[in-house]
Amino acid sequence: MFEMDLAGALDRLRATAPLVHNITNTVVANVTANALLALGASPAMVQAEQEVADFVPLAGALVVNIGTLTAPQLAAMHVAVEAARRAGRPWVLDPVAAGATPYRRQAAQGLLALRPTVLRGNASEILTLAGQPGASRGVDSTQAAELARDAARELARAGGLAVAVTGAVDYVTDGEAMLGIANGHPMLTRVTGTGCTATALTGAFLAIGLSGMAAAAAALTVLGVAAEDAAQGVAGPGSFQVALLDRLYGLDGATLAARARWQVG
Amino acid sequence: MFEMDLAGALDRLRATAPLVHNITNTVVANVTANALLALGASPAMVQAEQEVADFVPLAGALVVNIGTLTAPQLAAMHVAVEAARRAGRPWVLDPVAAGATPYRRQAAQGLLALRPTVLRGNASEILTLAGQPGASRGVDSTQAAELARDAARELARAGGLAVAVTGAVDYVTDGEAMLGIANGHPMLTRVTGTGCTATALTGAFLAIGLSGMAAAAAALTVLGVAAEDAAQGVAGPGSFQVALLDRLYGLDGATLAARARWQVG
Amino acid sequence: MFEMDLAGALDRLRATAPLVHNITNTVVANVTANALLALGASPAMVQAEQEVADFVPLAGALVVNIGTLTAPQLAAMHVAVEAARRAGRPWVLDPVAAGATPYRRQAAQGLLALRPTVLRGNASEILTLAGQPGASRGVDSTQAAELARDAARELARAGGLAVAVTGAVDYVTDGEAMLGIANGHPMLTRVTGTGCTATALTGAFLAIGLSGMAAAAAALTVLGVAAEDAAQGVAGPGSFQVALLDRLYGLDGATLAARARWQVG
Repeated sequence: MFEMDLAGALDRLRATAPLVHNITNTVVANVTANALLALGASPAMVQAEQEVADFVPLAGALVVNIGTLTAPQLAAMHVAVEAARRAGRPWVLDPVAAGATPYRRQAAQGLLALRPTVLRGNASEILTLAGQPGASRGVDSTQAAELARDAARELARAGGLAVAVTGAVDYVTDGEAMLGIANGHPMLTRVTGTGCTATALTGAFLAIGLSGMAAAAAALTVLGVAAEDAAQGVAGPGSFQVALLDRLYGLDGATLAARARWQVG
Repeated sequence: MFEMDLAGALDRLRATAPLVHNITNTVVANVTANALLALGASPAMVQAEQEVADFVPLAGALVVNIGTLTAPQLAAMHVAVEAARRAGRPWVLDPVAAGATPYRRQAAQGLLALRPTVLRGNASEILTLAGQPGASRGVDSTQAAELARDAARELARAGGLAVAVTGAVDYVTDGEAMLGIANGHPMLTRVTGTGCTATALTGAFLAIGLSGMAAAAAALTVLGVAAEDAAQGVAGPGSFQVALLDRLYGLDGATLAARARWQVG
Repeated sequence: MFEMDLAGALDRLRATAPLVHNITNTVVANVTANALLALGASPAMVQAEQEVADFVPLAGALVVNIGTLTAPQLAAMHVAVEAARRAGRPWVLDPVAAGATPYRRQAAQGLLALRPTVLRGNASEILTLAGQPGASRGVDSTQAAELARDAARELARAGGLAVAVTGAVDYVTDGEAMLGIANGHPMLTRVTGTGCTATALTGAFLAIGLSGMAAAAAALTVLGVAAEDAAQGVAGPGSFQVALLDRLYGLDGATLAARARWQVG
């Protein structure tokens, strides 16, 4: 059975303000930087192939997100991941829309083969990477997270990593334990980059030394609880996005621990 | 005389949540993704030359925006447009600041020669593409939309496409009919990317099967009505931008149809 | 002793809406464009090597920011700066995280050697460029601005430029005069891109013909006063970011002049 000290993890993140290195997409770069800052981490977006190997060791963790992948960016990701392995830095992979095109699928598979500490995707992405013909449509999943639980456990076991499948209920597994996280709000699907934000926050918790499973669990619970509060009384996704940053900033450890809706299985 | 069922179009968009493929600029990628999500569409920003041809057929429409053009992006745009033509997908071109530099003008002309379903620009951009020495200053038009009406009709006839010129009053033409849309608010000029948002929303309405003229008319009316509501009581452009997303999300078909200020000529 | 007409500068900026050419990073492109628009300038983000030399003369000033530097972007920056020198356009350099990697340090040094009108950085960045082993950690400074005052004066004298070091108190120097600006709010550190916004606003004031020192002083005072107002009663960095744009839009010259907390030394 999986357990962790959620409040302690959040307090530690805020006390240490870990530097998180993101190689991410142009749609969410601003949003994920702000989410990391709001929670208390220090984001950096550094992506040139010429410098990523020098930057990775400065950071506590690396976040790799293929949302608006280009060939130079993919090359830089490989260099950065190699540097992370050499320096012993944890890293998290977000295989955005992995099933949409052969190029994207191969890029995601190639990065997955380098064994991220955490793989975080929606059901369609996880099913794709598990080799199952899950229908994929752009960046939004056409599958409920439940359907990808077995695929996630399989991937986790095969790669020795933690896998998080996000959806109405999120699931995190290390290949043995399977944790369901029932926090969150449907408004998260009406703002771009909330999945990418979950991945970036996972990077922040990795950067303070948590295991892959604990980091993903903490990040998804933080985001879910903040989203529940942010959705209260807002008129739409514009206000929700603003309130989400405010709530990430204002969330305290005791509230986080009390509000977590975990299903351990 | 041009007529369409605005309420029905909005309802259909929400019911089908069409996937819209955007190859767009780094300034507005987040904003236009959020506007598409707020209205009810599903945005994807995929831009690598290696994959755009595979992605285009998955989407209902393609949006091409040259705002922060680079040579690799321009190459990918051409590949994507060819794929759209092969797959029978409609596409919309936003020739941002087309008249500012020779490189940008040639890029815009080269894409226009591939016959987008809709061309959406401000008066300076449309005049430039019509071969008229309209003064251009960066991305903001130095001309009123009225002055580009004839140029728009000319371009529409010559290319067999719909042309939208946006300004205080917007004009949409298919070469025959000319529709004026008097919705909107001056605050739209104090937030970056509202023109690009008009283009992206046109892509969403194209993706549900509307004609070029109907898609542009629906998008500009939706944006104009939402902007009128968003501007009520806001302190400035920051609040306006947030409220605009909320209003795009909350707008219903009946309100849209009742509030449209159309001048058919 | 340094003096300037702050209210007059702001009024002039609003009356002329100068075009500001930005070659900047993907994290803050949207935010800085919106800040320029909110204050009353006209932003353009044009970065292709093929066109920057043609675009620079159209603008009143150039902003160069290495936040998410790539090799093609660095090449374009050099072309743009050469064009600015030829056309007599002022330009401002933001050496984001200059000390983090050799690639970034060399890029910043290479651009600094081309003598920007203004160099704007945090203490770690300025110390790095002055050849002092200031510890750098990602994009956030590990040093107080005070510690970089001497280095700033040195750089200003050696290069014949103005240097601004931002922090809890900002310092601006032309190599002789040293101005402290005690406006601002800690919430500025919880939103990404506020330093980059200071740089972009400096570009806007350069574009109306102010000296490097006056432009930096005006920009930092404007941003500081707007931030003080924006922080009133907000729940967190999401709301603060929205309010900051509203306040940049609503700030009037008389308030700006009255609220400036300048320490002339």
